[in-house]
Amino acid sequence: MNRLYHYPLSPFSRKVRLSMGEKKLEVELVEERYWEQDPEFLRRNPAGKVPVLKYGNRLLADSTAICEFLEEVQPSPALLPRHAEDRYEVRRLVAWFDDKFHGEVTSKLMGERVFRKVMGTGYPDSANVKAGARAIKEHLDYMESLLDQRRWLAGNEMSLADFAAAAQLSCLDYVSDVDWNRSSVVKDWYAKIKSRPAFRSILADQIPGFPPPSHYADLDF
Amino acid sequence: MNRLYHYPLSPFSRKVRLSMGEKKLEVELVEERYWEQDPEFLRRNPAGKVPVLKYGNRLLADSTAICEFLEEVQPSPALLPRHAEDRYEVRRLVAWFDDKFHGEVTSKLMGERVFRKVMGTGYPDSANVKAGARAIKEHLDYMESLLDQRRWLAGNEMSLADFAAAAQLSCLDYVSDVDWNRSSVVKDWYAKIKSRPAFRSILADQIPGFPPPSHYADLDF
Repeated sequence: MNRLYHYPLSPFSRKVRLSMGEKKLEVELVEERYWEQDPEFLRRNPAGKVPVLKYGNRLLADSTAICEFLEEVQPSPALLPRHAEDRYEVRRLVAWFDDKFHGEVTSKLMGERVFRKVMGTGYPDSANVKAGARAIKEHLDYMESLLDQRRWLAGNEMSLADFAAAAQLSCLDYVSDVDWNRSSVVKDWYAKIKSRPAFRSILADQIPGFPPPSHYADLDF
Repeated sequence: MNRLYHYPLSPFSRKVRLSMGEKKLEVELVEERYWEQDPEFLRRNPAGKVPVLKYGNRLLADSTAICEFLEEVQPSPALLPRHAEDRYEVRRLVAWFDDKFHGEVTSKLMGERVFRKVMGTGYPDSANVKAGARAIKEHLDYMESLLDQRRWLAGNEMSLADFAAAAQLSCLDYVSDVDWNRSSVVKDWYAKIKSRPAFRSILADQIPGFPPPSHYADLDF
């Protein structure tokens, strides 16, 4: 059986979980407190980050490299389109959410409010929290501008770009940091992706000391 | 003609320049002071970063998405191997150098010593410089452990992983921040990649106010 070393509120772990779920690849989840840098875990991934996927007898690290690998070994259902220009757009947006959205929003809001407590690294920095709360508005507006022209974020088919975005937003939604009233098209997009079977395990996540709000797992939020 | 909006000491721009050079794709270079966030540049790339590639009538952003696109439209010479497991290893290492090496080393050394001056954002933070100087040693040792088993970083063929690594190291070498005496296998690897025709334009880079040391462009360094 495949095994994924993950952390429930790691958006990069969630991106891989969604991708595997959509492809109906079974996986056993093993929670890894990666910031404790356990030597056994560092042996599995010298980068010291989750997710790490045990696939057959191989250990795979880096969520983007893992998702590209899964696409190649299990191409159906496809999460990357067929043509180079369309594949480019998916990859651009995956990087947008993994790097820019995560750096400007998720690391600032969830990083300060949840991870500091879980990791025991002190009190939240309110300047970071404010910057994150400002930045998420711009990002939701950018998503709206994309979804005004397309059914899904990178085109008319669901793709890895949608999973990269939903991975970040679902983590933030766990701590009630997404204002779903800001954009009805973004809310409709999230309702569509939230109702996929691949999303079920994510909606069942529970972090001790941080119970999710009731709307988190509600498909009619 | 293709056009690349870049900055000479941007490792991500260099990765794309090396990839295009190796594939013999002609490109006109346009220097972009991206941190000034010129509205015209932001229209080209809302992420506000270099590189941006004008390819035909398309504008492409994000160095990894660009390199994957170039691989698909110009597959020869190949910079990604054929088999999924080998492609995974290339992509894992590209992410290693783009994310981890850049975050722990390049952004700390070059970010503090060069970009603060160029961008006018104050004096270097010596704690960051020290952390970067410490981290580069670990990274050179990690590269040595890979090159002890392989001809190139990700396997026995040169790949995007080598360009991602050389892009970071060549920027640091421009400011004499690489101790090439630490590992003879890493030095030999860099000498091999430095002598590729694709490297010539990078060795000719000049930043006003920061002349490169004489060994920078020397193939026998």
